[in-house]
Amino acid sequence: MYRTLGKVIAKELREQALEANLALPRQGLVVFTWGNASAYDPAADLLAIKPSGVPYEDLTAQSMVLVEVSSGRVVEGNLRPSSDTPTHLVLAQEFGVGGIVHTHSRYATVWAQAGLDLPCYGTTQADYFSGIIPCTRDLRPEEISQGYEHYTGLAIVEEFHRRRINPTDVPAVLLRNHASFVWGKNAGEAVHNAVVLEEVAQMALYARLLNPNLREIPAALLEKHYRRKHGPDAYYGQKKL
Amino acid sequence: MYRTLGKVIAKELREQALEANLALPRQGLVVFTWGNASAYDPAADLLAIKPSGVPYEDLTAQSMVLVEVSSGRVVEGNLRPSSDTPTHLVLAQEFGVGGIVHTHSRYATVWAQAGLDLPCYGTTQADYFSGIIPCTRDLRPEEISQGYEHYTGLAIVEEFHRRRINPTDVPAVLLRNHASFVWGKNAGEAVHNAVVLEEVAQMALYARLLNPNLREIPAALLEKHYRRKHGPDAYYGQKKL
Amino acid sequence: MYRTLGKVIAKELREQALEANLALPRQGLVVFTWGNASAYDPAADLLAIKPSGVPYEDLTAQSMVLVEVSSGRVVEGNLRPSSDTPTHLVLAQEFGVGGIVHTHSRYATVWAQAGLDLPCYGTTQADYFSGIIPCTRDLRPEEISQGYEHYTGLAIVEEFHRRRINPTDVPAVLLRNHASFVWGKNAGEAVHNAVVLEEVAQMALYARLLNPNLREIPAALLEKHYRRKHGPDAYYGQKKL
Amino acid sequence: MYRTLGKVIAKELREQALEANLALPRQGLVVFTWGNASAYDPAADLLAIKPSGVPYEDLTAQSMVLVEVSSGRVVEGNLRPSSDTPTHLVLAQEFGVGGIVHTHSRYATVWAQAGLDLPCYGTTQADYFSGIIPCTRDLRPEEISQGYEHYTGLAIVEEFHRRRINPTDVPAVLLRNHASFVWGKNAGEAVHNAVVLEEVAQMALYARLLNPNLREIPAALLEKHYRRKHGPDAYYGQKKL
Repeated sequence: MYRTLGKVIAKELREQALEANLALPRQGLVVFTWGNASAYDPAADLLAIKPSGVPYEDLTAQSMVLVEVSSGRVVEGNLRPSSDTPTHLVLAQEFGVGGIVHTHSRYATVWAQAGLDLPCYGTTQADYFSGIIPCTRDLRPEEISQGYEHYTGLAIVEEFHRRRINPTDVPAVLLRNHASFVWGKNAGEAVHNAVVLEEVAQMALYARLLNPNLREIPAALLEKHYRRKHGPDAYYGQKKL
Repeated sequence: MYRTLGKVIAKELREQALEANLALPRQGLVVFTWGNASAYDPAADLLAIKPSGVPYEDLTAQSMVLVEVSSGRVVEGNLRPSSDTPTHLVLAQEFGVGGIVHTHSRYATVWAQAGLDLPCYGTTQADYFSGIIPCTRDLRPEEISQGYEHYTGLAIVEEFHRRRINPTDVPAVLLRNHASFVWGKNAGEAVHNAVVLEEVAQMALYARLLNPNLREIPAALLEKHYRRKHGPDAYYGQKKL
Repeated sequence: MYRTLGKVIAKELREQALEANLALPRQGLVVFTWGNASAYDPAADLLAIKPSGVPYEDLTAQSMVLVEVSSGRVVEGNLRPSSDTPTHLVLAQEFGVGGIVHTHSRYATVWAQAGLDLPCYGTTQADYFSGIIPCTRDLRPEEISQGYEHYTGLAIVEEFHRRRINPTDVPAVLLRNHASFVWGKNAGEAVHNAVVLEEVAQMALYARLLNPNLREIPAALLEKHYRRKHGPDAYYGQKKL
Repeated sequence: MYRTLGKVIAKELREQALEANLALPRQGLVVFTWGNASAYDPAADLLAIKPSGVPYEDLTAQSMVLVEVSSGRVVEGNLRPSSDTPTHLVLAQEFGVGGIVHTHSRYATVWAQAGLDLPCYGTTQADYFSGIIPCTRDLRPEEISQGYEHYTGLAIVEEFHRRRINPTDVPAVLLRNHASFVWGKNAGEAVHNAVVLEEVAQMALYARLLNPNLREIPAALLEKHYRRKHGPDAYYGQKKL
């Protein structure tokens, strides 16, 4: 499959993945190498992802690892892909999203460690997420031992299916006792959404400490703000030419 | 109306609005494009405001959108004005203030999400606000569906009238489950007050967590500090020449 | 008195005061103009202090206002001294300290707004303060109306006398519903101590939130750390040549 | 002993210690001079450590103080070593680690002041520490008076022995009412681990405030993450050439 596509798509995916990985430290989302971004092209069955454990300042487009999504095989690159690659592959295939980001950003991780869904307390979150951001269940010991990162992806997909949440409308998840995955139409949008997640996670933490009896945003206001920015009735921003 | 005023006032308003919008990221009040500032000239019936969704680094004086306040019509500019423009227009007309700022700055938003008035716990707040900063009521579903941003402005005005708060003495409001609006004599002062709001919101959050039985600042101390800086007996700063 | 001393002491005090005032924003202790530093020479009866309301970036040594402490009169300078000058004068005279700093630094102000003494929870505080940092009582309405800043100084002195705290061993105070005053042998040491106060105030806030039943540092450990750095048995740092 | 080794090892230890000490302010772990790092070579019986009270910006490799670990004697250098040197010596000898860092970094110190072990709430901690990070007991008054820094080291060792914690698997400790010590294979790794400790201490603080009934990370997940990065089955990062 890879050969027939030529090098063009591979090059674009690598550059997109590089750009997104470099944005992680710039946006304050990572400490050391605690995060990775990938770019995915469904038609080409290819995903470009950060190599494992390499500092961001040493990354180049060429160092991004190219993986064939359906088989999980590395098709180009001398470096090992991120150890979280199997989770990226599941999300790419099941959610069909063009960009995925995993970080241990502080406040999203706090909610994940607390084992709590992130409720939608305000319009800042509603502008990007059409409701709560779910926290996954515990992985079972056998899932952890027999393909940890793969089962992490399956647990995310299961959570969205069980709660009937559309991953396009809620492009993030909290992994219990772990951290977050965030996605978007492409790798850049995934980073953007990861910044939003981190900010709303911090706001929600303090709002809840301030008022433990806090209720969530009224449904009409949530819907209004999400629809100001998404779908056919959106009127935020400039008209596309 | 606009023609007779010539271009001078329009140019000044645009420059003032540009300056204030550029100050928002510099003062740490915004993430991405989450905020907008406007400058208003009551005599000219004109308000200059940020275009919707445009990154701050791309703004120019020319890109500020000029709106005729009484009619709500855009009189100059090819870009859409901020989606929050109708709220600015209500505050400009009803409060008569020369500058208005809307941001999702973190700690002011926390109080808004918590649905709580911001009490006045200390002289830092009393130096700028003569008491509590009110949080508005929920908007009704029909208000949200039939002119959300306009009714947001009306709800602010209603809150100040109902509580008999003078908007000159308390130049800020918290929008329940949303964020804040702040104003001032001009757009620069509105930004200044937004910085103050953010700082006192953070201080008040921590003070309340530290001492849940916290009482507000005694009335005599509140009055003293507000009057040190405002009105005929003010003695803070240098004499005006 | 001033004439006989010549210009030398005045010049040195001004430069010391300038340096300390410029350090306030650099150390993150102030927003806008919310703080002032003074330098005091007891033998010369002179104190140099920041002019009121002037931005730090506009300060020069020449703009520092020179006040005769015993009379409270400005002896040099065209600008009004800080509105907090009467508090500085009381502390200079009563405590005999060479430098004084007043800021609304965030976490010290949080404790002041909470109306709580800052307990000594650890050696970070014990390295600089030989115990708790007291919070003053409310000022009476007549004190507020008849010389607010002067009575603020007297309330500080009263608090230290009543509790038998030596101001040399505890060079800071919290003003209820207001902020902090900090002092030292000279203006530079006062700024240094203000940085320490802010850091230990933040640490103590979080420690208390984490463990509401927190006890203070054991007396032997407090004494040990304070004496490692102060007095005849100090062994921290390098021997003075 | 020192003579026979020549100058080579001494020079390398000094440079390693210098590099680690300079990293402390760069990583935001210290205020003023509140921290020190050392590098240790067990075969040479030598440890290089920061001189006491000297600002980081004035440090040079030559200013690092060289101590013979078995005797505790300074073998090179005109400056006094850090007042915490006896603690470093105990940890070097008892734990055999190549680098040690002591700082009053904010959030680790908060846990130490709260007198609480730092539980392992998530994989961020599990990637570096195979479980909780213990908080030491109070030192007894006679320990404080008769060799405070030496007994601090002994109390750390005692804590690890009593709880059967392997210092290689948990390279950090909280000192009750004081701050933290962190170690690693060399001084650079000790600094790295100190950054991790600070980050996980902050995350754990907020997670606990958000959910007071928080449980620790499940054992299988803890083990999985620790073993992804440590030991024979590690698969994080790139293969060593």
